[in-house]
Amino acid sequence: MEATMTVERIVEPAFTLSSGPVDAYPAVLRALSRTVLYDFDPVFQHFYEAVTDKAKVALRTAAPPVILHGEPVLGLEAAAASLIARDDVVLNLASGVYGKGFGFWAKRYCAELVEIEVPYDDAIDPAAVEAAFRERPDIRVVSVCHHDTPSGTLNPIDEIGRIVAAHGAYLIVDAVSSFGGMDVHPEACQADIFVTGPNKCLGCPPGLTLLAVSGRAWDKMKANPDAPRASILSILDWENAWRRDQPFPFTPSISEVNALDAALDLYLEEGPEAVWRRHALTSKACRDGIRAMGMTIWPAREAIASPTTTAVRVPDGIDADALLATARDGFGVSFSSGRGETKGKLIRIGHMGRTAQPLYAVVGLAALGGALRRLGANVDAGAGMEAALAVISNQ
Amino acid sequence: MEATMTVERIVEPAFTLSSGPVDAYPAVLRALSRTVLYDFDPVFQHFYEAVTDKAKVALRTAAPPVILHGEPVLGLEAAAASLIARDDVVLNLASGVYGKGFGFWAKRYCAELVEIEVPYDDAIDPAAVEAAFRERPDIRVVSVCHHDTPSGTLNPIDEIGRIVAAHGAYLIVDAVSSFGGMDVHPEACQADIFVTGPNKCLGCPPGLTLLAVSGRAWDKMKANPDAPRASILSILDWENAWRRDQPFPFTPSISEVNALDAALDLYLEEGPEAVWRRHALTSKACRDGIRAMGMTIWPAREAIASPTTTAVRVPDGIDADALLATARDGFGVSFSSGRGETKGKLIRIGHMGRTAQPLYAVVGLAALGGALRRLGANVDAGAGMEAALAVISNQ
Amino acid sequence: MEATMTVERIVEPAFTLSSGPVDAYPAVLRALSRTVLYDFDPVFQHFYEAVTDKAKVALRTAAPPVILHGEPVLGLEAAAASLIARDDVVLNLASGVYGKGFGFWAKRYCAELVEIEVPYDDAIDPAAVEAAFRERPDIRVVSVCHHDTPSGTLNPIDEIGRIVAAHGAYLIVDAVSSFGGMDVHPEACQADIFVTGPNKCLGCPPGLTLLAVSGRAWDKMKANPDAPRASILSILDWENAWRRDQPFPFTPSISEVNALDAALDLYLEEGPEAVWRRHALTSKACRDGIRAMGMTIWPAREAIASPTTTAVRVPDGIDADALLATARDGFGVSFSSGRGETKGKLIRIGHMGRTAQPLYAVVGLAALGGALRRLGANVDAGAGMEAALAVISNQ
Amino acid sequence: MEATMTVERIVEPAFTLSSGPVDAYPAVLRALSRTVLYDFDPVFQHFYEAVTDKAKVALRTAAPPVILHGEPVLGLEAAAASLIARDDVVLNLASGVYGKGFGFWAKRYCAELVEIEVPYDDAIDPAAVEAAFRERPDIRVVSVCHHDTPSGTLNPIDEIGRIVAAHGAYLIVDAVSSFGGMDVHPEACQADIFVTGPNKCLGCPPGLTLLAVSGRAWDKMKANPDAPRASILSILDWENAWRRDQPFPFTPSISEVNALDAALDLYLEEGPEAVWRRHALTSKACRDGIRAMGMTIWPAREAIASPTTTAVRVPDGIDADALLATARDGFGVSFSSGRGETKGKLIRIGHMGRTAQPLYAVVGLAALGGALRRLGANVDAGAGMEAALAVISNQ
Repeated sequence: MEATMTVERIVEPAFTLSSGPVDAYPAVLRALSRTVLYDFDPVFQHFYEAVTDKAKVALRTAAPPVILHGEPVLGLEAAAASLIARDDVVLNLASGVYGKGFGFWAKRYCAELVEIEVPYDDAIDPAAVEAAFRERPDIRVVSVCHHDTPSGTLNPIDEIGRIVAAHGAYLIVDAVSSFGGMDVHPEACQADIFVTGPNKCLGCPPGLTLLAVSGRAWDKMKANPDAPRASILSILDWENAWRRDQPFPFTPSISEVNALDAALDLYLEEGPEAVWRRHALTSKACRDGIRAMGMTIWPAREAIASPTTTAVRVPDGIDADALLATARDGFGVSFSSGRGETKGKLIRIGHMGRTAQPLYAVVGLAALGGALRRLGANVDAGAGMEAALAVISNQ
Repeated sequence: MEATMTVERIVEPAFTLSSGPVDAYPAVLRALSRTVLYDFDPVFQHFYEAVTDKAKVALRTAAPPVILHGEPVLGLEAAAASLIARDDVVLNLASGVYGKGFGFWAKRYCAELVEIEVPYDDAIDPAAVEAAFRERPDIRVVSVCHHDTPSGTLNPIDEIGRIVAAHGAYLIVDAVSSFGGMDVHPEACQADIFVTGPNKCLGCPPGLTLLAVSGRAWDKMKANPDAPRASILSILDWENAWRRDQPFPFTPSISEVNALDAALDLYLEEGPEAVWRRHALTSKACRDGIRAMGMTIWPAREAIASPTTTAVRVPDGIDADALLATARDGFGVSFSSGRGETKGKLIRIGHMGRTAQPLYAVVGLAALGGALRRLGANVDAGAGMEAALAVISNQ
Repeated sequence: MEATMTVERIVEPAFTLSSGPVDAYPAVLRALSRTVLYDFDPVFQHFYEAVTDKAKVALRTAAPPVILHGEPVLGLEAAAASLIARDDVVLNLASGVYGKGFGFWAKRYCAELVEIEVPYDDAIDPAAVEAAFRERPDIRVVSVCHHDTPSGTLNPIDEIGRIVAAHGAYLIVDAVSSFGGMDVHPEACQADIFVTGPNKCLGCPPGLTLLAVSGRAWDKMKANPDAPRASILSILDWENAWRRDQPFPFTPSISEVNALDAALDLYLEEGPEAVWRRHALTSKACRDGIRAMGMTIWPAREAIASPTTTAVRVPDGIDADALLATARDGFGVSFSSGRGETKGKLIRIGHMGRTAQPLYAVVGLAALGGALRRLGANVDAGAGMEAALAVISNQ
Repeated sequence: MEATMTVERIVEPAFTLSSGPVDAYPAVLRALSRTVLYDFDPVFQHFYEAVTDKAKVALRTAAPPVILHGEPVLGLEAAAASLIARDDVVLNLASGVYGKGFGFWAKRYCAELVEIEVPYDDAIDPAAVEAAFRERPDIRVVSVCHHDTPSGTLNPIDEIGRIVAAHGAYLIVDAVSSFGGMDVHPEACQADIFVTGPNKCLGCPPGLTLLAVSGRAWDKMKANPDAPRASILSILDWENAWRRDQPFPFTPSISEVNALDAALDLYLEEGPEAVWRRHALTSKACRDGIRAMGMTIWPAREAIASPTTTAVRVPDGIDADALLATARDGFGVSFSSGRGETKGKLIRIGHMGRTAQPLYAVVGLAALGGALRRLGANVDAGAGMEAALAVISNQ
């Protein structure tokens, strides 16, 4: 037989620097292994209310948030299905794959979808939103992705929120991969439904959604005859489920709630500002390292680069999949690929939760630089790591 | 101030003998605390395929089952939404709260719902199914709950399956709380969609659905323009997601899959037959104890009593909530209440996974007997425990 | 080949009702899985001091206790080696295998060993201690085992302590298996060295000793040229190791200290009195059940029966090993055997930490009764369980 | 109030790169959280034998090794106390703090101690051992530390072993911090007692010793009337304790044995050669980085540098404690200090078990370089990291 076979034993990565699922905090992993309680046991019912309270503190909302029992795509689909009524005109703001994707759901439920789309390395201009309202004053719902993870870019959510509020429309914000890693909160951006999850910057595994819902959003959903009820997609079913004396519409994901509890404790005990600083510092070190190495970040400009994910443009002549595989096999680091339109064009280094620690930027740069060189690219990994270290040293 | 206040510290139960969420196996809890991997990491992709393979072995199907990332209500709703087309006539078999409940979902998607309903302490008679087909040969889909947990009763699923198959209709089986605790399998009962979950007899926390789907069910779903796609409710999206070289439609619940992996190992290593024996023995000991204590099981006859849950009729003059609270506070045991129509009429002692150990029947009887006596009922707890022990001793 | 082989798969017990190692609390197991820190890391050094402080609160001593890094036999041997000088006359009080055993260590280090020995189902009479001092006023050290676990009997430690103190002698107390399960503390019994461990009533795995040392015991050890130094047997080496700014003489058992931390939290948060009540209630239920079943507890009288272990006399005609094996294989319960002189004469049901929950008494009685009957004994298991339940119900 | 207070919250290190206690493998942490079994339960007794078997495979010995229940200082002291008889002449080889330290124990038990001591950045010359035997043919026991961790240096253990064997003397080897990280085994170096532990390169927490004992060492210990018996220091007590049908002399550290089991699985499944390669590569990358950064490793020459610890000379003008504190506080990395004579002169970067992953060398260099610069040293951190990456890239 001429053919040779190479059977390689695949080992777990030494470092997971993805933009989600993320390497969960050790304390979260331990919480996952807590005894599983019956959901109607009084201890669990009190506990669920207490976790909801902690989430409220973390989200800085006046009203208790809703926990949905599926990863945040559930929350996003549920938001579209619940808030958007069949006669609504929806303005969807698309600056990336996730923002664009939300439009498909919005279209499913609305009368008409209006869209502002910008290149996927750029951000929505609030002026364009203002202009859209001038042109279509009948816009009732606006949807926007704060951090479009597949691009590593941020949208100016607070400005957009002000415009939407001024026009009396409803705002759906996808802050799944930014909340917990920077200063973004539902009431600050005047979101009517603010969707996030514990599985990114809070350092949990995927499995839950956190939803902050404004009073007027509750009213609109209740008035919407098509809003899901008696369904996994229902937000309404869960309105009062956080109360210790109320039943759950269906069985909550006990262990994921245990994990969320631990993650919220970590977040609140370290202090949100301290957590955000870690994310900011790690990403700044990473970006400076990328540039010093001779590479380019994906976002069109520094100001819109996310502190929780650094998207790096794959150099000409390099295959993105080969780059990821080399970083993984040769250096033990698992990065995220691009997704949809950005797939093949960039790779992503996550800085979320546990890995939002400055030296992980150096780890990421080492693996990226080493992998690129193996593939023949001419990058100065040493300069990159040095630049990252300089940022960290001067913190 | 005259009033006195009693502030009691609520402590976790010493024993959780619920019919779900259940006290998970220790090895499952440890698996939950495994490192969280990036879902596109090659190790996770291989792992996911391997877990699917194990689930296939456990389910005894020829084709790989589907894992959905929400507890089994997701799987049930998804099955209704996907398999039932708008021109279908559906026969729903209701012998309890869950069976009846499925009818509401079926009605949402079908042209016409036909229903056979029996009292909730009884089981569906296969002859009635046969009769329904004679009357309505246009029935295309039949849905049935194998173990209607809120009643602790079983339906004759294999006989029903034969009839449905003979008429060329499609069969949806809810075996959520029976699979893993007794000899019930998708192909044996000729189910087209067989919905179960790891969170009952397999001893996992809630968070996933396991679905076995027949080839003709795949075809029917694909032909159904209304079958959910790009949705949390989609089964179709996940058809090939188990393959190591295929992407996930959205992020799977990594830690729950880790738990499922451990639970399947436990199940297959102990041996399904041995696991079922534990469930059968524990429930038999419990039922004999209940009767010897002077109480009555809820199912109309022994033959339809589930081996995974013993539903016990609450004696006249006793308040079910007070009974549960007394067992919990005074004896440290968390039982399940009834649900919907059975709420207030029965309490349930679960025998699932870890708690399907014969002596847990004695624990349950002690707590139940002790609590009943505190509430003034005249029960012979000693005779009950003695009868249970006799069953165990004579195994 | 004619012979048939029965290969039985040995499975883990469903219940561990031993008198040590005990089934650890779930929170302790989770603490064991905490990240392992470098012992000179400032967080660990602060943590170690904090754990010592908690142990001090639990032991109700003025001075910080010493943690030794081996299970309590290390602490006992170290106490003998350190406190007993070569010219000391030692009075050893032996009411069981462990008390007797300590005499062998004492003899190794002292000038002369005087011993009071009583039958191993009885307790030391304080009057005998008083008499010994009259006869031998040169007794310098007295050693006594509070709870002689292999007998399940208690010695009147507070009275003995008063007598020893009145004579100016030093007292070594082995309270390994009683502390944490009842009201026994170093200063209350005037112990100079009080040896206990987290691995019994505190619900930890074995691996550490807790030592409370009086000021005069420190002085005596320092003055003893033979007291171990630079040795695993040294107590002196660890005098200041609890201070965050002091080095450890050798590497402490990090994970065991993590477990101890969690166990002390559980103990102090539930409240020592509440914990003792659980132990007392469980053992009372067990003893009453044993008698109602027609069996006899090992201790000569109820007053000296330990609340943390119920030693049960094996009926005539029954083989103790067969009894243990039958309870284990047939009923899934792991009991403790006797030890040394009591081996073969009794079996022991532990009530320690997690298993000091009243219904575990019923579990133990069921397994014991069932096993005895299988072996042909005529016991009334139902009456036993009923009697235990009556105790629990009337708490 | 004039005084200002700075209360800093101390957080856990992001990276523990110590030379022990080491950051344990996640699978080891999970094993620590296994259910605690009664040591005389048949499952535990079988398990203990199975773990001993795995340890035998890992140690590559013909006879089962001994597990002692305390961290390796226990094993070292026990080896001295057991093997060295009061009329023995002992040759102790001291090339570092630990080697020297063993001499103190040896002296406690022997007739005469002969010592070869070399500077603590150097290694023992086998020729000197040969010369010592010529001068003192009555040497009966030779003791040597393979990897003197406080220096990060290795001794030529195989050559020394050959000489000792040729002279018919007994050899005690301390391989605590090298076994598992490189090719060193008891029979290969002809050790009579080979002391190691799971808490270094096997990635467990501290708490156990592994001892390989030759047949003639067993004979010598048995013939030694002073060899500890009925003591924590006894090796003899444990000779047969590994057998499933033999009792334990005292309670083993159940959870630590669980951890050892998992660690041995990891070691044997990855393959010892692969594990050693990781250690070698990581340390090589680290050493090359140190030099490229403009610093000096502590060992006098590359050939004697340990693959499991890189000891780095602290530059003139830099305070070692300040350096460690800066790396810890400013960069989140916990390194080891020197110890005894090497304290203040070097810092140590551990490469053991989980942290023997090439990119951890980069992490260590980043923290070290960054910290040195903060303290005013002129080091080229970028060049250091680049050099390390070059080693990794060219593997």
